[in-house]
Amino acid sequence: MKKSFASDNNAGIHPLIMDAIIKANEDDYISYGDDFYTQEAEGLFKKVFGSDIDVFFVLNGTGANATALKAMLHSFEAIVCPETAHIAVDECGAVENLTGAKLLTVPTQQGKITVEQVNSFMHFTGDQHHSQPRVISISQSTEMGTLYTQAEIKELADFAHQHGMYLHMDGARIANACAAMGIGFKEMSKDLGVDVLSFGSTKNGMGFGEAVVFFNKSLAKYFPFIRKQSMQLLSKLRYITCQYKPYFQDDLWLKNAMNANRLANLLYEKLSDIPKLKITRKSEVNAVFCLLPKDKIEHLQSKRFFYTWDDASGEVRFMTSFNMCENDILDFVSFLKEELT
Amino acid sequence: MKKSFASDNNAGIHPLIMDAIIKANEDDYISYGDDFYTQEAEGLFKKVFGSDIDVFFVLNGTGANATALKAMLHSFEAIVCPETAHIAVDECGAVENLTGAKLLTVPTQQGKITVEQVNSFMHFTGDQHHSQPRVISISQSTEMGTLYTQAEIKELADFAHQHGMYLHMDGARIANACAAMGIGFKEMSKDLGVDVLSFGSTKNGMGFGEAVVFFNKSLAKYFPFIRKQSMQLLSKLRYITCQYKPYFQDDLWLKNAMNANRLANLLYEKLSDIPKLKITRKSEVNAVFCLLPKDKIEHLQSKRFFYTWDDASGEVRFMTSFNMCENDILDFVSFLKEELT
Amino acid sequence: MKKSFASDNNAGIHPLIMDAIIKANEDDYISYGDDFYTQEAEGLFKKVFGSDIDVFFVLNGTGANATALKAMLHSFEAIVCPETAHIAVDECGAVENLTGAKLLTVPTQQGKITVEQVNSFMHFTGDQHHSQPRVISISQSTEMGTLYTQAEIKELADFAHQHGMYLHMDGARIANACAAMGIGFKEMSKDLGVDVLSFGSTKNGMGFGEAVVFFNKSLAKYFPFIRKQSMQLLSKLRYITCQYKPYFQDDLWLKNAMNANRLANLLYEKLSDIPKLKITRKSEVNAVFCLLPKDKIEHLQSKRFFYTWDDASGEVRFMTSFNMCENDILDFVSFLKEELT
Amino acid sequence: MKKSFASDNNAGIHPLIMDAIIKANEDDYISYGDDFYTQEAEGLFKKVFGSDIDVFFVLNGTGANATALKAMLHSFEAIVCPETAHIAVDECGAVENLTGAKLLTVPTQQGKITVEQVNSFMHFTGDQHHSQPRVISISQSTEMGTLYTQAEIKELADFAHQHGMYLHMDGARIANACAAMGIGFKEMSKDLGVDVLSFGSTKNGMGFGEAVVFFNKSLAKYFPFIRKQSMQLLSKLRYITCQYKPYFQDDLWLKNAMNANRLANLLYEKLSDIPKLKITRKSEVNAVFCLLPKDKIEHLQSKRFFYTWDDASGEVRFMTSFNMCENDILDFVSFLKEELT
Repeated sequence: MKKSFASDNNAGIHPLIMDAIIKANEDDYISYGDDFYTQEAEGLFKKVFGSDIDVFFVLNGTGANATALKAMLHSFEAIVCPETAHIAVDECGAVENLTGAKLLTVPTQQGKITVEQVNSFMHFTGDQHHSQPRVISISQSTEMGTLYTQAEIKELADFAHQHGMYLHMDGARIANACAAMGIGFKEMSKDLGVDVLSFGSTKNGMGFGEAVVFFNKSLAKYFPFIRKQSMQLLSKLRYITCQYKPYFQDDLWLKNAMNANRLANLLYEKLSDIPKLKITRKSEVNAVFCLLPKDKIEHLQSKRFFYTWDDASGEVRFMTSFNMCENDILDFVSFLKEELT
Repeated sequence: MKKSFASDNNAGIHPLIMDAIIKANEDDYISYGDDFYTQEAEGLFKKVFGSDIDVFFVLNGTGANATALKAMLHSFEAIVCPETAHIAVDECGAVENLTGAKLLTVPTQQGKITVEQVNSFMHFTGDQHHSQPRVISISQSTEMGTLYTQAEIKELADFAHQHGMYLHMDGARIANACAAMGIGFKEMSKDLGVDVLSFGSTKNGMGFGEAVVFFNKSLAKYFPFIRKQSMQLLSKLRYITCQYKPYFQDDLWLKNAMNANRLANLLYEKLSDIPKLKITRKSEVNAVFCLLPKDKIEHLQSKRFFYTWDDASGEVRFMTSFNMCENDILDFVSFLKEELT
Repeated sequence: MKKSFASDNNAGIHPLIMDAIIKANEDDYISYGDDFYTQEAEGLFKKVFGSDIDVFFVLNGTGANATALKAMLHSFEAIVCPETAHIAVDECGAVENLTGAKLLTVPTQQGKITVEQVNSFMHFTGDQHHSQPRVISISQSTEMGTLYTQAEIKELADFAHQHGMYLHMDGARIANACAAMGIGFKEMSKDLGVDVLSFGSTKNGMGFGEAVVFFNKSLAKYFPFIRKQSMQLLSKLRYITCQYKPYFQDDLWLKNAMNANRLANLLYEKLSDIPKLKITRKSEVNAVFCLLPKDKIEHLQSKRFFYTWDDASGEVRFMTSFNMCENDILDFVSFLKEELT
Repeated sequence: MKKSFASDNNAGIHPLIMDAIIKANEDDYISYGDDFYTQEAEGLFKKVFGSDIDVFFVLNGTGANATALKAMLHSFEAIVCPETAHIAVDECGAVENLTGAKLLTVPTQQGKITVEQVNSFMHFTGDQHHSQPRVISISQSTEMGTLYTQAEIKELADFAHQHGMYLHMDGARIANACAAMGIGFKEMSKDLGVDVLSFGSTKNGMGFGEAVVFFNKSLAKYFPFIRKQSMQLLSKLRYITCQYKPYFQDDLWLKNAMNANRLANLLYEKLSDIPKLKITRKSEVNAVFCLLPKDKIEHLQSKRFFYTWDDASGEVRFMTSFNMCENDILDFVSFLKEELT
């Protein structure tokens, strides 16, 4: 079957991970996390990030972000983030709804926020009329397929901590970022001063479930209650947590992410040859953004669905996945070439 | 391995349902529900309940209840329910938190609410000082292992509709109820006037995911947005929805539920022979409640975990599951007999 | 004009307090509390309660209760209170809506909660499935016109603190309670272990505005932000705060409350002589509850409005106010006598 | 005493309005709005706006905006407004907290939003991942002291209605806007297609209390419950509502607003003569914005307090009030001249 370039969540579950799910089904277990697999997964996260963390498993990415942020601030505080952030655009207001807090968004071309932009809200501090900036939230990699450098993340973390604030990382695609930058999960987050990480893996070979990882453990104090009240606790939790052993084992996560990144790079190169299509951004991870002739978009989508990013300009996004191969890229490029000539 | 009688959610996934999950993993699909399996599941629900319904798939039981109720009322309205309701006791305040509304709870010995009890709040109607009663919420079967008769449900529905209210059914164990009463899902809900059903199946052989079924379709208008904002939309939704085909096929749901009910009945009978143990309630579905000597409970739990229902009296709950057999019951009874003599 | 016995908030503003409002209008002041009158009022509260308190001024009683409670708990925690509490019945769900938390209500005949009743929820502690009991909320005097003894309040406070909980007092009628028990505001609250007090005075001669008094100052840390976000900060705040000087001066508050209490007592006595009317409760402050012939209630209300407390039994409530005199009582009694014979 | 130019809410209550408050205190009245003055005020609003409206009285401006918006949308919908809007900046997140909904803010130099800017969010419509734009909120006059033309308001209203949206007007300074443009309240709001108006008068001579006026009456259906649950219902409501008779009588509102506007104009002219001070914006109503030498601001504020609008540039705001006279302006200008030379 033709691969879809609409999103990296169109792919399924990696076979090794599916094997783990089948294995976890061989016996009964106490529900809500008091089970072997959940304890094992907690141990694996501590192996990756160090033993001085707390980790909790939730149901999906929006749930991970919203509950993480609820643990990080009060309703009268604010989250500063890029206007392109997933929490700002793509979660139907879940964060505002769950936390009651405000999002302070800043304009950005490449999906990244700077210390200067955060600083522009600091004069609100201490004034009862203004939502108090408490959390900076960044996505790594970003929704625009770009990457923060380690120095940039550290600078944001330092700024946050100097101002009594916290740094949250939406790691829906943290594996792709790590693969692209050649560093590990811990180097990308905890070591740079991130306080809480939404650890995503569904887009990189798992089937469902995400993890909220607290490097600042004081913020985790009430998280089990937040998770339950926020409807993010699965009864048969082992079906999420059993997936992490194969995900981490033999760097499966890295192989998956490297494959997706490499194929995005290939796609980027091949698309450069199509005259009617204009690449618009660097492809640092597994996304390629480009302009298509506006009158062609709907027709193309009807044949091989993908998302329009900007109706006005005709910018669209193509995403590669862990389970694609070179032929999938070449086939898609051929399709586009044919249709666009 | 020894079976746990702590809860019917300690069991795993029925093999036929696991086969469907494996099958759904064979190819890629558009995420968030635009996929073959989700459409198939919608069709199956329409076959069961009639085509004039709307059905949406969510992540877990608490999510099903809270989002269903959010679709049924405003924040200044109230839900009337038994004080033993799962939404009142076991969801860490998820309903109040998501809806902003009030729960009006009524005392009950057997987990059931009566029209008279609901009626006692009707004088609030139209008075701006009081949360306006808008929804009656019942669980079928109840948290106390009891059943509403069809007439009782119809009476509550009629009362609700006469007063501009709605009837919500928490069907976490609707299969056990249907099996016990010898009627189908539709006869148990839509045909009796239920407006919205939280359709549970995780406790009866599925692995994760629940359905919110709207018989009153006007209430479903905004549900996709409520679901997303409430963090209850799975990206790879097919892994939930693929489970319904085997669940409904050849009445697997009924066989599962009948087995659990039958074994609870057997457990009930066998426990009657243990002098130091006193059965406290009728066992109408798959739960048996009894009093244990209070000084023995902790020791017993350490060996074969189960939940205490009432610390004061020493009442405990044993639950049977779809995947148990007679030997599991006999083994557990032997264990209790030995320990209690 | 005939006085209304519907509520003690039907009376107006005491003349000495109105004089203060007129005086506060003589000049301009910085808004939102940076003004002379607000600072003066803070000083007066510190004189009454000791300097180790924090006090904030809000707009009304529902605002005082809901914001106080928001400062005392998280959304996944619970408030334990009598089922007759104003916060449970008469605020249209403001507390649930603002805090996102659960109210755990207990049945009561006389509007008072006991330590045993609170204790029945303690087994929820630490279990992620249950809203965690964090605050006990009592009203002094109660909505049923009764009083907690000092020992009873202290016992509740001690229990709360032993269990990591807080005690909130809804003092909408604290003046009437103090007058009846012959003790001061501090003796009634701070000295007994109350953590946060909703200090009411509108029902006792002020026109609008209430105070939230924190004896547990750690709970006040974020209150200015909570107040503003909860829409409870008045721009021209001096029109509230200027009223406290005359309210406290020369014990005006006490004279007002004693007058209302004394007249309720007189009403109680006089009503005892009417055979068709049956007094139902002790009259410890300024309310008298009695049964009226159900077929007469509507007619009586149309002539001299008052509230029905229980439709089923025909119990009604009469309230006396600071600005009534003996003749008002005698006149009302005559009216009832005439109508009921 | 020297007048403050910090805000038009530093002024007190107009003497004629204070007389009305004193008068309303002469007798007792049923509380919560069932009183003569509230009914009279409703009548006055219907005289101003036509009888086909609903009007409700709340406690303050933040309360008016947040409750109005809660009546206009669901939590999964969004409000589109300028990033300088009072609801976006100065209400400590009250709107997000009360409604659970998202604010979509657009950049603006002069505090005004355009149809094109609103239109940029329309592609969200119908997509469950995005908060659905439901309300456009404008302030007239704006927080930057500017005015929408009637044509601009009508264009926004028409756009809103064509897209199933509503137009909300924050009329905290609607009187100043009407005075400046020479039209009435109705011409400024209802006649242009505004759906709901937050009718402010506290900044123009009243003491406390605002009105929420529904021109789209279908949106008012549940407002009494929203108001009560949102803690915006005053028990002795007559002390708010009695103020409207003098406010409307003999165009007191217009005289007050014209005076403030005229004096702002005078201030604008006089400030133009000070070389070290640079006017930054048109002065269309009662505000003057200008740049001050940054090293002088703190010193000036310590002597005659005013607000800094932009720390970076040194832009400050001076506001004139209904109760100022020419000498107040001349005196303030002298003060600035002296200090700045």
